[in-house]
Amino acid sequence: MDYQPTPRTTVRRLPKRGDYDRATVHAILDAAFVCHVGFVAGDAGPVVIPTLYGRSGDTLYLHGSAASRMLKTLAEGVEASIAVTLVDGLVMARSAFHHSINYRSVVLFGKAAPVTDEEAKNEALRVISDHISPGRWAEVRPPTQRELKATLVLSMPIEEASAKVRTGGPVDDEEDYALPVWAGVLPLRTIAGTPVDDGRLQAGVGLAKSVAEWRR
Amino acid sequence: MDYQPTPRTTVRRLPKRGDYDRATVHAILDAAFVCHVGFVAGDAGPVVIPTLYGRSGDTLYLHGSAASRMLKTLAEGVEASIAVTLVDGLVMARSAFHHSINYRSVVLFGKAAPVTDEEAKNEALRVISDHISPGRWAEVRPPTQRELKATLVLSMPIEEASAKVRTGGPVDDEEDYALPVWAGVLPLRTIAGTPVDDGRLQAGVGLAKSVAEWRR
Repeated sequence: MDYQPTPRTTVRRLPKRGDYDRATVHAILDAAFVCHVGFVAGDAGPVVIPTLYGRSGDTLYLHGSAASRMLKTLAEGVEASIAVTLVDGLVMARSAFHHSINYRSVVLFGKAAPVTDEEAKNEALRVISDHISPGRWAEVRPPTQRELKATLVLSMPIEEASAKVRTGGPVDDEEDYALPVWAGVLPLRTIAGTPVDDGRLQAGVGLAKSVAEWRR
Repeated sequence: MDYQPTPRTTVRRLPKRGDYDRATVHAILDAAFVCHVGFVAGDAGPVVIPTLYGRSGDTLYLHGSAASRMLKTLAEGVEASIAVTLVDGLVMARSAFHHSINYRSVVLFGKAAPVTDEEAKNEALRVISDHISPGRWAEVRPPTQRELKATLVLSMPIEEASAKVRTGGPVDDEEDYALPVWAGVLPLRTIAGTPVDDGRLQAGVGLAKSVAEWRR
């Protein structure tokens, strides 16, 4: 089912790349774990801050220190815009003009609200943790009441949302195909390197399953 | 030399992670090539849009279609905030609470202005191209006057800027070091895959040097 396009989410430039399909939006949100949150901070004007997130159904969760200016401002219910972007490749054309990138992005608009119920807060933190590192939550010490209190968790409904996706090779001007210039796509992806043990591991503790199996 | 911190760029949360050093800011900007631009679009409120960029000295360049709403709005000289974020690793602690990520980020504030002089515009586009794919500009057909006209190029001074950086392993609560839980860092990085030839390459055209040598 599609999200209903609004004036804010209607993709104007290259509308063919726009996509309001719920499954597409969810898949992009699930593939990334850093978002960029924009809001207006009083006289300071617009501010963009990167942060981690998680998704459950049509809810996006943010979290951080209860002292965070961004979270405290968002918790007041100000308008926010959240963008998530994945770069899949560099699109190399025969002309400078037709260079591009392959990407998947989502832009959301809405207002966030604090999650205050202790159980709901704990569950939202699990969602964020398992979004970033599936399975990690079950391996580690859960939050204490004091830690929950020190953490501000916000939920934002995924309602006003659009995706924009580019795939495929370069599209050159017809006359440029005669040029002796290499053209094509250089695929890019994020990979995990070799895990680095903490210096104070207990004897006999092997690599965590969630870390060994981490993929994106 | 440091950028002068302002109320907007002063890192409040975890101020130890804040860095106003020009070389640090430049190095982070040079390592990435996608930024997230925040601005206020009239009644629509804050909007965050991902876009490519380039840097030359203390100038950031953005570009795109002359029809882009974002670029046209920024060209009016509205306040903008631009964030650049690189994720270097997942920091796995023994408690859920102390999980973190290693990252390098820059947040800029300021106003952009259109680059209108044809030669300056062409040079700004070269800067953006060589920022994303060093050496590519010299391999391809340069922009025509018509293409330059269809492209809006903006420059933004890098003046009000701060970096935020986290490195290193997890920092656990003292009593948690006794837990039989793996902890450490999972390094993440972006790599290029095998280049994909365009279907209409001229006979005998080999892989471009800029593509073969692309690293990040």
